[in-house]
Amino acid sequence: MNTLKNLTIQDLHHELEKDIQHKIDQKTKPIGSLGQMERIAKQVALIQGTTKPTLKKPVMLTVASDHDICNEGVSPCPTEITWQQCLNFMNGGGGIGLFCQEYGFDLYVVDAGVNYDFPPHPHLIDAKVRKGSRNFLHEPAMTMNECKQALENGRHIVKEMAQKGSNVIGFGEMGIGNTSPASALLSVLGGFSVESCVGPGSGLTPHGVNHKAHVIQSAIKKHGISPDPIENLARFGGLEIATIAGGMLEAAAQRMVIITDGFITTSALLAAHAIHPKVVDYTFFAHQSEEQGHKKMVDFMQGEPILNLGFRLGEGTGAAVAYSIIKGSVAMLNRMTSFDEAEVFNTANTQ
Amino acid sequence: MNTLKNLTIQDLHHELEKDIQHKIDQKTKPIGSLGQMERIAKQVALIQGTTKPTLKKPVMLTVASDHDICNEGVSPCPTEITWQQCLNFMNGGGGIGLFCQEYGFDLYVVDAGVNYDFPPHPHLIDAKVRKGSRNFLHEPAMTMNECKQALENGRHIVKEMAQKGSNVIGFGEMGIGNTSPASALLSVLGGFSVESCVGPGSGLTPHGVNHKAHVIQSAIKKHGISPDPIENLARFGGLEIATIAGGMLEAAAQRMVIITDGFITTSALLAAHAIHPKVVDYTFFAHQSEEQGHKKMVDFMQGEPILNLGFRLGEGTGAAVAYSIIKGSVAMLNRMTSFDEAEVFNTANTQ
Repeated sequence: MNTLKNLTIQDLHHELEKDIQHKIDQKTKPIGSLGQMERIAKQVALIQGTTKPTLKKPVMLTVASDHDICNEGVSPCPTEITWQQCLNFMNGGGGIGLFCQEYGFDLYVVDAGVNYDFPPHPHLIDAKVRKGSRNFLHEPAMTMNECKQALENGRHIVKEMAQKGSNVIGFGEMGIGNTSPASALLSVLGGFSVESCVGPGSGLTPHGVNHKAHVIQSAIKKHGISPDPIENLARFGGLEIATIAGGMLEAAAQRMVIITDGFITTSALLAAHAIHPKVVDYTFFAHQSEEQGHKKMVDFMQGEPILNLGFRLGEGTGAAVAYSIIKGSVAMLNRMTSFDEAEVFNTANTQ
Repeated sequence: MNTLKNLTIQDLHHELEKDIQHKIDQKTKPIGSLGQMERIAKQVALIQGTTKPTLKKPVMLTVASDHDICNEGVSPCPTEITWQQCLNFMNGGGGIGLFCQEYGFDLYVVDAGVNYDFPPHPHLIDAKVRKGSRNFLHEPAMTMNECKQALENGRHIVKEMAQKGSNVIGFGEMGIGNTSPASALLSVLGGFSVESCVGPGSGLTPHGVNHKAHVIQSAIKKHGISPDPIENLARFGGLEIATIAGGMLEAAAQRMVIITDGFITTSALLAAHAIHPKVVDYTFFAHQSEEQGHKKMVDFMQGEPILNLGFRLGEGTGAAVAYSIIKGSVAMLNRMTSFDEAEVFNTANTQ
């Protein structure tokens, strides 16, 4: 078994559970009437170990890579879109550029393996392992060394963000073809049939979806399934997925609030979860993606998506939008009046 | 038939539909991949009649009243909570006080019929018709004159907000006992059995829910169902519900963006819809409430709730939170880069 160096993810501060719940129940409202926002507020408080949590300097890491599996015709989009969109995002464009401005994130594009030489940019982090993961129909997507390097890169980037004072980290991705590794990882790590893990991605026809399933099925047959989750990530993953998985593990170790996005970032969470299950305790599932496999991932890790807006864009867009709900939940815990403060008849005592 | 004076609600600007859709489809993303946010952006544009809509000075009207139907034991809460919470809200407290600060609304508490004499307050609007609606088990909740007065009060308040430059209006409510008139209106206006329209409200036991259903059933049997929607509103409604219904109708006439909240405000929308169906074209359904009848209302008017967070608080809380999604949707339409601007390969042309 391969493990990551010096990675310790602690339990949530369950010893505060009663205090946090009491504080929520003293707010001027019927008990439980703010539904998921109460659950979210509580989880943030348990992560931070305080009844007065704060959200500081939210960072969005949109991690990008290319995928040689595209040679098998698994995506309808030209692979040039990966680098073109990265440039677009760095300059504040695209869905994630806009939503980071709108919902208050510092956005960094992380180049984990894009097949392009970017000029330096203040919103670009260079963490390129190689130009694109390998065609996993024929060979593992990454060597074990490449995969471990990507995991460590993710950890390193997140650690730096934590050191700069961020305690909220959203993950997004950009990588033409990356629904194929995400579907493969779901099948391999979740134990689901390949057919139930594939979908149209950014716009495949039903025929294209069948072809994608066939390619993934052949690859799994060729490489087999390992008892080692990192080995599986190397065989079937992608450089952005491994980098995100490492980032998520480090974020949990740093007790940060993690926000996962759609199908690809949640496949990274699935890989991280296979390495260290406690990572999920620190994670908020931003939304329910339209890609059918996403629901399987969320259910497998017993997550509860905050939004269900029919998104299938990725990039971190769902994570950015969902943050507005997380922020409101924490504000509720900190600033909403209690029965005592407001001199309102306490219904919490009568029910 | 009773109609409201000088009320004209025009069609949406459907002539712009193609232009708006084209603008959305030229954004750097796969077509349709921002799901509901694309639908929301389009609806705002159709309301305002421009491909560059703007959201100005959002106002939340939390309309309050008491209900003499509480004498029949239909609520577990003391009626004093109505006025106590109104004071709490005016001073920025409670769920709605907090969320208005958090999500950027000017909050006004509208006294439509609270059984209390409020001192003047900058965030209070006095529109009291009488102290509480009547016990509709024995007599109509309002006389026709009272009901029309409440409708006109709502119209007048909203007209003033529009004149002050607001083009977004959220509706909330406060009124112990008001799930009873809301359930009655749903049954009468939607044609559903009373049993399928009632729920626990702020915390009734199953026995209490049955009792509430029995009271409502007896009242409908006593007063009967009128072909005139205003007559039905007078018989089974409440002063806050009628005031909100009037406010919604005027907001649609003013081409404002209307945000409805939970079970009670949506019962007001149902009444407004019975008077003038086009009001729904101007309305965003903020969220799916936990109260079972709410889903029936939403489906009856073919609405699509933006959020599903398990709220059952009312006050306008869901409307305030959902506004963050509406705002992001409009920002997407106005500011997200197009393929041309970003020099990204245009997938919209290849699909």
